[in-house]
Amino acid sequence: MARRPHDPLPAITVPGGQDVMTERTIPDRPDPADRPAEPVRRPERPGPATPGTATAGEVLAAYLHGQATEFLRSLRLHGDSGPGAEDATEAARLLRRSARRLSGALCVYRPLTDTEWTDQLRAELLWLCGTLGHEHAYAARLARLRGALHRLSGSAPATPAVASAADERPWSGLTVGAARAGALLERQLTLARTRAHSAALQALGTSRFHAVADAAAVLASEAPLAPAAYELPAGEALPRLAEQAQRRLVDAVGALPLSVAGHPYNAEALTHGLAATGSSDAPPAEGRQDAPWHQVRRLVRLRRYAQEVLDEHRQAEVEPTLSVRLLNAGQALDRHRDAAEAAAAAAAAARTPRIAPATAYALGVLHADQRHEVEAARFAFGRTWQRLGTGL
Amino acid sequence: MARRPHDPLPAITVPGGQDVMTERTIPDRPDPADRPAEPVRRPERPGPATPGTATAGEVLAAYLHGQATEFLRSLRLHGDSGPGAEDATEAARLLRRSARRLSGALCVYRPLTDTEWTDQLRAELLWLCGTLGHEHAYAARLARLRGALHRLSGSAPATPAVASAADERPWSGLTVGAARAGALLERQLTLARTRAHSAALQALGTSRFHAVADAAAVLASEAPLAPAAYELPAGEALPRLAEQAQRRLVDAVGALPLSVAGHPYNAEALTHGLAATGSSDAPPAEGRQDAPWHQVRRLVRLRRYAQEVLDEHRQAEVEPTLSVRLLNAGQALDRHRDAAEAAAAAAAAARTPRIAPATAYALGVLHADQRHEVEAARFAFGRTWQRLGTGL
Repeated sequence: MARRPHDPLPAITVPGGQDVMTERTIPDRPDPADRPAEPVRRPERPGPATPGTATAGEVLAAYLHGQATEFLRSLRLHGDSGPGAEDATEAARLLRRSARRLSGALCVYRPLTDTEWTDQLRAELLWLCGTLGHEHAYAARLARLRGALHRLSGSAPATPAVASAADERPWSGLTVGAARAGALLERQLTLARTRAHSAALQALGTSRFHAVADAAAVLASEAPLAPAAYELPAGEALPRLAEQAQRRLVDAVGALPLSVAGHPYNAEALTHGLAATGSSDAPPAEGRQDAPWHQVRRLVRLRRYAQEVLDEHRQAEVEPTLSVRLLNAGQALDRHRDAAEAAAAAAAAARTPRIAPATAYALGVLHADQRHEVEAARFAFGRTWQRLGTGL
Repeated sequence: MARRPHDPLPAITVPGGQDVMTERTIPDRPDPADRPAEPVRRPERPGPATPGTATAGEVLAAYLHGQATEFLRSLRLHGDSGPGAEDATEAARLLRRSARRLSGALCVYRPLTDTEWTDQLRAELLWLCGTLGHEHAYAARLARLRGALHRLSGSAPATPAVASAADERPWSGLTVGAARAGALLERQLTLARTRAHSAALQALGTSRFHAVADAAAVLASEAPLAPAAYELPAGEALPRLAEQAQRRLVDAVGALPLSVAGHPYNAEALTHGLAATGSSDAPPAEGRQDAPWHQVRRLVRLRRYAQEVLDEHRQAEVEPTLSVRLLNAGQALDRHRDAAEAAAAAAAAARTPRIAPATAYALGVLHADQRHEVEAARFAFGRTWQRLGTGL
């Protein structure tokens, strides 16, 4: 398979100042499709990529082809579904899923690609994931907080995470403070979710989005890779780049306070839990504490996608245990991020003017509860990481 | 040493309905003198009690003699010190320390005693421990909550537990909500402490208290034991009764949800954390959840005092490892009780009328934080208990 030269895509505009070299800014959501229960989709393969003889370019192109095909299929699915329908939600989820993988593979295996073209595309994929992800994030956050309030009230079993926001009496059985806190969060997060939904719909109609779709079509037919990629043996070039992603991950984990996090009930996550109450503008101290963990979450995901490309080469999971443990580590950090954001939402709701003291009290309990979930997630990640070992 | 018959002490009045058969109702406090750092006080021995030849009565009488002597010495110390002085606080602590041991030994080794006389005395010792313990309890609770608020605010290192309540600006460096919550708790707990202080002083002037002191004088000269006690070999009778205390402890621990508590971050202690917000009269669900742990705390302590009597027999610590582990288990459960009561104090403060929402929010965070301390203490107890083993 020879490389064909590609023109830069003039339709893709990169907003100035965006960091396109890392995935630091992808604001996406946990993805149920990432769970091992669901069989891994194997994209159709565009060309021969037999292990042993395939080049790095062939394998990477095949992976990108598969994910881009998924992307375009989800896009059609989204167009066919009615606005606000369950199909549309699912289609948006699949769109983000493919977009994350395209962006991740282009990041890890960047030296094998036409970097000018792919750096632009990655920035646009980040924008897309962010825009499409907010609606899901607000819905998930509300479901998490609703479940926590029920748990904290010792009332009926928590509303399932998929419960409709239109649930008739979601707060029945709660005490006054908990019910009011719940209703306040419901109002605030439903409003945010509705706005995010409109913004996502609007984005899908822009020329900026159509340019991303065009780029996906290019990836689905012929990925713009570097000429050298088709000369390097896949078995050498791909593992070397995956190893680099691995090293970035190991370095970032090394900077985490894992020895503290490994002690159960270290009370670290709630330190500064009351530091941000007074000033709503300053970035809360908790956010600064969480940032390195969020960064590791992104690097774990990159490492996972890197592994998917290696598996593409072998046409099988090279190291099933490794894949599962990376998945577990990622899930612990997803939970870390979700709990941290839910805690922040509770704290933000407590700053609403003129709320009753009982409401504020319940929001305080809720905030602390979610910060302890943060701490629990760090503990869980530490244990998973120990099993992964530094050699991974 | 022959047994002399004793008349029942007419001056000791047992309030009707009090349970004098168990130590369920002792509302005392953790005792820094229980820590291993401080050398164990060996009371002077009133008669020969050589291991191998001593009778159970001789050994028990010697232990009771020693503790009663300590009791009377602390009482003199208290009388000599000025009101409210540090000496008086220390003297009250030592008084409670001896009273708990007298009551505990009389409970475990009850069949060896003149039960009519000692059951009355035990009830009165419980009353005394309760009355004298409140002041210390409120002071310790305030120190704990003050430390937690500072930790939660990420401000200056926590005020040491012994900090004076008259500290000039104990809440400096905190955010508005945390500072107001702290000032509210300071007011409420200082008031409660002052009242407890007056009640304790008043109690020490009553004829009821003088009757207890007279009984301690009897124990210091000649303990009223059952005649048979002086015929049983100490090496048989004492371990058998200690074993019974052990069985009661093992049974009570068996009823605890240790498998849940052994999972870090099980979020059990905060379940129902919001259930009691609305109704201030009903006993909170958390109290019901905590009760079996409090009961185990008392049984661990009884087991410890039972061991002290065995050590009296051998004139050495029979099993130093066992003693240390019982101490550790007891300390975990002391922490459990302290955190539970601090959490309840935060919840109670949040029900103060007309507080600001920011204050209520901080109290909610504080409540949840202390309930997580409860959970952490249960986890710690579970680990210690595992090391103790069921054979202890």
